[in-house]
Amino acid sequence: MALPEVERGAQAEMQTEPWRELAQAVDSGDVAALNDFLDASPTGEIARAISRLSVDQQRELFVLLPERQAAELVDEIPDAQVVQLLRELSADRIAAIANHLPSDEQADLVNLFAPQQADEILAEMKPVESADAQHLRVYPHDTAGGLMVKEYLTCPETGTAGEVVRRLRDKIDEYEDYDVQYLYGVSSTGRLIGVLPLRKLVLTRDEQPVADLIVRDPYYLTADTSLDELTDFFQRHAFFGVPITDDQQKLLGVVRRADVEEARTERADASLRRFSGLIGGEEFRSMPLYSRSLRRMTWLSLTVILNLISASIIAFYQDTLNEVIALAVFLPVISGMGGSSGNQAIAVSMRELTLGLIKPYEIRWVLYKELILGLFNGLLVGAAIGCAAWVWKGNFYLGLVVGSAMTLSILIAVCLGGGLPLLLKRLKIDPALAAGPVLMTLADASGFFFALSFASLALHHLRI
Amino acid sequence: MALPEVERGAQAEMQTEPWRELAQAVDSGDVAALNDFLDASPTGEIARAISRLSVDQQRELFVLLPERQAAELVDEIPDAQVVQLLRELSADRIAAIANHLPSDEQADLVNLFAPQQADEILAEMKPVESADAQHLRVYPHDTAGGLMVKEYLTCPETGTAGEVVRRLRDKIDEYEDYDVQYLYGVSSTGRLIGVLPLRKLVLTRDEQPVADLIVRDPYYLTADTSLDELTDFFQRHAFFGVPITDDQQKLLGVVRRADVEEARTERADASLRRFSGLIGGEEFRSMPLYSRSLRRMTWLSLTVILNLISASIIAFYQDTLNEVIALAVFLPVISGMGGSSGNQAIAVSMRELTLGLIKPYEIRWVLYKELILGLFNGLLVGAAIGCAAWVWKGNFYLGLVVGSAMTLSILIAVCLGGGLPLLLKRLKIDPALAAGPVLMTLADASGFFFALSFASLALHHLRI
Repeated sequence: MALPEVERGAQAEMQTEPWRELAQAVDSGDVAALNDFLDASPTGEIARAISRLSVDQQRELFVLLPERQAAELVDEIPDAQVVQLLRELSADRIAAIANHLPSDEQADLVNLFAPQQADEILAEMKPVESADAQHLRVYPHDTAGGLMVKEYLTCPETGTAGEVVRRLRDKIDEYEDYDVQYLYGVSSTGRLIGVLPLRKLVLTRDEQPVADLIVRDPYYLTADTSLDELTDFFQRHAFFGVPITDDQQKLLGVVRRADVEEARTERADASLRRFSGLIGGEEFRSMPLYSRSLRRMTWLSLTVILNLISASIIAFYQDTLNEVIALAVFLPVISGMGGSSGNQAIAVSMRELTLGLIKPYEIRWVLYKELILGLFNGLLVGAAIGCAAWVWKGNFYLGLVVGSAMTLSILIAVCLGGGLPLLLKRLKIDPALAAGPVLMTLADASGFFFALSFASLALHHLRI
Repeated sequence: MALPEVERGAQAEMQTEPWRELAQAVDSGDVAALNDFLDASPTGEIARAISRLSVDQQRELFVLLPERQAAELVDEIPDAQVVQLLRELSADRIAAIANHLPSDEQADLVNLFAPQQADEILAEMKPVESADAQHLRVYPHDTAGGLMVKEYLTCPETGTAGEVVRRLRDKIDEYEDYDVQYLYGVSSTGRLIGVLPLRKLVLTRDEQPVADLIVRDPYYLTADTSLDELTDFFQRHAFFGVPITDDQQKLLGVVRRADVEEARTERADASLRRFSGLIGGEEFRSMPLYSRSLRRMTWLSLTVILNLISASIIAFYQDTLNEVIALAVFLPVISGMGGSSGNQAIAVSMRELTLGLIKPYEIRWVLYKELILGLFNGLLVGAAIGCAAWVWKGNFYLGLVVGSAMTLSILIAVCLGGGLPLLLKRLKIDPALAAGPVLMTLADASGFFFALSFASLALHHLRI
């Protein structure tokens, strides 16, 4: 059915602005409409719609929603947005929502808040949930302890398969959300003894003793296992989960493959953010202005200082520049090309460090590889820039000065770019954060230095 | 037991150079030692050791290893390294290795080669494996079709639970590696009818009809479902896998949650690489020089041209620069700050696009948000730079020119940085790739233009 242009536009407007739908539901207190919206929309759509509500509407949303739906919602939207939204609520309301989250998410949620507020929330949560969350939150986020869940099934090493099945049957509802790929055989003191794949339980007779079915001497990891080690484990073994124990082999939790992969994605995303200078944490445009400004200015203020430092080299050679003004055209080019070359080398180093293809102590090998490449590419680019200068001003020496400065600048930039991530990693500093600015300053400064000092040496050839 | 210093050094050398161990094993043809090394070392260590072997040694490695171990190895090392290694082998050797890989990996492996070689390999593979791989390889990598596996279990909708269990029992070995969380109920024509959770099979009696246990009307997705839609699906539902069907609801394969997460990580890593200018594909330092040079020069040659374009603005204003040489010091600073500010805005836009917090058509909202922030931060930074210039030369107008040019440059840079990713996404161009160079050129050019044109206007105040 063809609609007149106006109506079609209005329909499109309403279709493209779902947040209005959400805002209406919130304002009119229509919980059913709220639930409909949340069930029907993709998570990105939901997060977007919420971000366009006013602060009051957002608070109202979390007051209206039943706890379970609120917990699902919290699980689906980005962490940075969660803090913004829940900050306004009371501790007992947040606790009520947290009670419905899986244990690892509870710990993450609580850790998003300042310590005092976090303690208040924990105090208001159900004792069992609170204990789980408190146990998990002490582990750093990127370790087995921080990723593990406490929702797993155990069975004693005595008894028969039939008894295990009966116990499962009784608690079928409670175990709805659990990962029942395996049951973990534990001793009376809670020590991990073996693994009982559900598959085996299916294919066996009731009277078979559990002791015969359990796979003894199972793979397990400790809570301090790093994300890289977990990644490696799941690359070598096709399992979907691994039990996590303490030093006495007491079972603490289970880390699932999918959660490891998710943590890797988050880490890669965070790397890109820090590499782009968003070091003050994740920024969303729905955040207030001062918050966004602060996050960006953290990086910019540092960059200002570094840029002025390298620019001071130009100031030092002002007299040379006065005589060879054409150089001023090529200084930003040298700076730009040095930066691009260096960033490529940084990216390769970071990638190779992540994959384990290089170790932080292998700086000499990396420098050797970058030296050759830097010379090769540097000569190509230097020749191109040099020719451009030569052709432009008809002065061969200008081309020589600019070209050789460019080549040396690229050479230094790729060596710095290649080596800095390794050095920073040894010093336990995040390469994604620091390699950029250090490289930029040193590469710029050296580029300016070479161009201007070479020009000073060849001054009588360059006076046009 | 204390060792003399020399021995300890040698021990450390051997400990820190496992590739020598691998090289020795390859050279002496010692397959047992090879397997020991591969079993004992983390995957990063293996990839690293392999990359340090000579080309002949690498070929020899894949000739020595039994097919199954070779397949495991191929599964563990990065794709770019796989191509390098296998390229030298014959098609039937590659096919023999491929036969042992899971179906989605087979398709990925085959697609790493040029079409002609890929066809040769497929022709040499076992018919069943070859058919699976051929079926899967037509799907783009980042879709449900490209991620799905063909290793899943089905059951007919007739019969009893006991019959299903008996059939499982018979094929227990074959199904060792399968994801047996669910069985998929299919009709006689292969249409997806329902899902039978393994859990239910455990908790039921033998004579229960399958028809009663199957969960009808199950969730499913089609093969063209994008990675973003898959991510959304697994965010909303706690399942570990989802069946993939064609338009007639015929079951094609299963996508597992962990594979979706892994694909997301790869995508995030690739984004960082392209953002850093590694657009010619993944680079490893173990690659030959010409290969590495080509990959980096793809980006650098483009950057040279763009840099020269923006530098030509300076050339145009040479006369002004001649009179106010101090400006030459601040041009790289303006360029650098504009680049940093713009990159932050690009990163925020890309993040918000990924999370679905903004849609590509919402350019006006993004520009509005960036405009305010750009003005705010721009004034701060402009004031800082302007004061530096003022203090340095004692000339207020120099400070004013430099400061206002800086402010405007940042303003333009953040608006460009914020809006370009959205625009590029609408034009189906990869933002990680193009936003950087376009921003850099336009931001530099505008910064130079403002600084030099303002200086031209205020020339009589600036002549020192």
